[in-house]
Amino acid sequence: MARVLTPQAEDFPRWYQDVLAKAELAENGPVRGTMVIRPYGYALWERMQSEVDDRIKAAGARNAYFPLFIPESYLKREAQHVEGFSPELAVVTIGGGKELEEPVVVRPTSETIINASFAKWVQSYRDLPMLINQWANVVRWEMRPRLLLRTTEFLWQEGHTAHATEQDARDYAIRILRDVYEDFMVDVLALPVVVGRKTARERFAGATNTMTLELMTGDGKALQMGTSHELGQNFARAFDINFLTPSGEREFAWQTSWGSSTRMVGGLIMAHGDDAGLRVPPRLAPTQVAIIVVKAEATEAAARLSDELSSEGIRVELDDRADVPFGRRAVDWELKGVPVRVEIGPRDLAGGTAMLVRRIAGGKEPVAVDALADLLPAVLEEDQALLLRQSRERRESRTADVATVGEAVEAVGAGGWARLPWAALGAEGEAGLAEQSLTVRCLVAEDGSVPDDEDAPGNVAVVARAY
Amino acid sequence: MARVLTPQAEDFPRWYQDVLAKAELAENGPVRGTMVIRPYGYALWERMQSEVDDRIKAAGARNAYFPLFIPESYLKREAQHVEGFSPELAVVTIGGGKELEEPVVVRPTSETIINASFAKWVQSYRDLPMLINQWANVVRWEMRPRLLLRTTEFLWQEGHTAHATEQDARDYAIRILRDVYEDFMVDVLALPVVVGRKTARERFAGATNTMTLELMTGDGKALQMGTSHELGQNFARAFDINFLTPSGEREFAWQTSWGSSTRMVGGLIMAHGDDAGLRVPPRLAPTQVAIIVVKAEATEAAARLSDELSSEGIRVELDDRADVPFGRRAVDWELKGVPVRVEIGPRDLAGGTAMLVRRIAGGKEPVAVDALADLLPAVLEEDQALLLRQSRERRESRTADVATVGEAVEAVGAGGWARLPWAALGAEGEAGLAEQSLTVRCLVAEDGSVPDDEDAPGNVAVVARAY
Repeated sequence: MARVLTPQAEDFPRWYQDVLAKAELAENGPVRGTMVIRPYGYALWERMQSEVDDRIKAAGARNAYFPLFIPESYLKREAQHVEGFSPELAVVTIGGGKELEEPVVVRPTSETIINASFAKWVQSYRDLPMLINQWANVVRWEMRPRLLLRTTEFLWQEGHTAHATEQDARDYAIRILRDVYEDFMVDVLALPVVVGRKTARERFAGATNTMTLELMTGDGKALQMGTSHELGQNFARAFDINFLTPSGEREFAWQTSWGSSTRMVGGLIMAHGDDAGLRVPPRLAPTQVAIIVVKAEATEAAARLSDELSSEGIRVELDDRADVPFGRRAVDWELKGVPVRVEIGPRDLAGGTAMLVRRIAGGKEPVAVDALADLLPAVLEEDQALLLRQSRERRESRTADVATVGEAVEAVGAGGWARLPWAALGAEGEAGLAEQSLTVRCLVAEDGSVPDDEDAPGNVAVVARAY
Repeated sequence: MARVLTPQAEDFPRWYQDVLAKAELAENGPVRGTMVIRPYGYALWERMQSEVDDRIKAAGARNAYFPLFIPESYLKREAQHVEGFSPELAVVTIGGGKELEEPVVVRPTSETIINASFAKWVQSYRDLPMLINQWANVVRWEMRPRLLLRTTEFLWQEGHTAHATEQDARDYAIRILRDVYEDFMVDVLALPVVVGRKTARERFAGATNTMTLELMTGDGKALQMGTSHELGQNFARAFDINFLTPSGEREFAWQTSWGSSTRMVGGLIMAHGDDAGLRVPPRLAPTQVAIIVVKAEATEAAARLSDELSSEGIRVELDDRADVPFGRRAVDWELKGVPVRVEIGPRDLAGGTAMLVRRIAGGKEPVAVDALADLLPAVLEEDQALLLRQSRERRESRTADVATVGEAVEAVGAGGWARLPWAALGAEGEAGLAEQSLTVRCLVAEDGSVPDDEDAPGNVAVVARAY
């Protein structure tokens, strides 16, 4: 069979580009750095949206929508924020055929414009906590774009909340981190992310604390899959979000923000893909089972099976394109990483069997068609667990516990992550790593929790090369 | 009770603004013409999205995402299209801190950028029909913005398709019009839209035929709720979307596009609202039943009822804010137009009853709590039908069949619609109406179908003042 993809071992970034193109996931848009998300890529994103949205709603936040266009002056109100985002802004200077008096910025994130609304909506402690989420596109001008990972425009959700106390804000930021993001990534995406705290250097512009979920990709690098920030009272002061306490005083609100994006689609591909293409975890998969009609005679039986499996709640797609060569279709389903293929040909029909082909566990065996509805749920769950186990094993085997900066650099150079005591590194050591394009992805506490304090004793720095 | 809203009869536009504010649906953003969609307004939109999306998928289209930014040169490729949209464009001239070599336009609609992708994706007749839909924000600089009806930025879905034949494209445009939009608007929104064909004057920029769904608002004006266009081969020629036919020739594809937007939320309010606020059709309502705890003692019983109704598939919200005055909460639920309120107080509890308050049919009566799960589905369906009947009766009673242009002007002046033979009006008469800000909303055939031809005998013009 002709080689469809560049092998991962030969050139991982090239393999990634190949998968995006051949599995019809995404491609470049005409304006540099922009992307077209093709239907299959978008179907993955829709499933992610649905799962994340359910969890966000369960955490009590409600969806709303805020404008794309932000007055330039808003961005400037929080000093660190404008400094962080200025180099990446897209600015509209002409509207309705006329030069605008005040240019407007295309939102790079919505802290400023949402907080302008919060200032109106939050009056009393009774209005708190205010828990808002938005699904939207944002724009950050990218010099070195990479499809789905870092693009000028991307899709995301951004949550913004206001609370009466610092503790309440902190608890909510952690709740989102754990109950929304970590739960979704581990449980649905089968990605064993490392959850930790960003160093001051890597913190979000305007935050007092940034917490992160870091993924090891197939080539041993790191990808930030989501973040949850404590904003302290920084934006509350800048936008005058204050509330009347039960005792009648005015206080600034304590805030959080948190986001996850279409980058998760890129992370999914980079962590679970192999030389034959994508492998989609069954709980996420838009299509869990593809029923493939090998020859036209099997169409009716395949359609019956498709209906039966659908009614059992399995997400099925019927491939009855008998006029397209079977081999080409098989390669296509493999590329797209659909967990299970059920191939039905005329010979199988006679014996009441079909060929069960498993993309994740591997293997191919004839099974009785009548048994599939009972069999498949367990097969899919087994594959889900296997993907998580494989990813976890890779992360563990390619993470080195080291004691010195030199050892960390060496470990990362060998294609993995290093864990070393933050006390042995510190902000200065971190700056040194940056010169070699290495970053502290996050700090984790000894017991695996997210440190409350950057300099808490026992903090371990996870060092890697980032996407 | 203090007056909460300006009465409709006193000042309808003011009533509309009041409802948006008091029911916490939407408000102005800081950049002129932009809007903030608040959580309750957004919940209505989410329910619309879900219902429309299901129908679009049933019609075979798949969702995808295309860039917000379009090279200015793309817009110029189709002559009528650029002429139609030029005055409304927002243009980004600065990106990443630098002046851009080619300015980029913020999409006013995505025909051009999607068709640039179609040119790559469509090669053979086997690739057709290509059926794509996108949920996105678009920007059209608005000089006279009105929240949810006409704003500089709005949210919508836009479908774009390519077909092998003109007939196939036409059939699909009509299928979307009828099976997606009309079915949704009539069946879920309870809005008796008139479905017809736009005149050449009112056609979409670049289309060969625009079909529309027109709603009569509470003040007898017209609101365009959705459109479905045949684009002929106009964009296919401009973007070179051609395919190999089975007989080996190259032909340009035939195309459609179609859209519906957050304007539907505005239409819903304007058609079903009354002096007490919004009235939401039960099939759409994010909350169909609000269970209101009158005093804290009833909380447990109310929560039990809430669980029971939820498990029956009813969308319930429990209002257990016993510390907020009951009257204020009742007004709030009324403003928000939640179809049914179930009020439970301590006295009701003793008798095992609750007060059932119906927002749409009106009335208030005690019912046995145990009977509610059985009773409510029928109540909700009755209210759904009632809303549709009321809207239909209004449209019928306020539409005059007339014979002359003068009579049409008079009828519209009296606060309604006029139907007159298109032959008695014609393009010239239409231009005359425009001077009085009246428009032909659409043409309908004698048998109620959408005319294939603007000048088919028997075509009737629906004339109104539009929002």
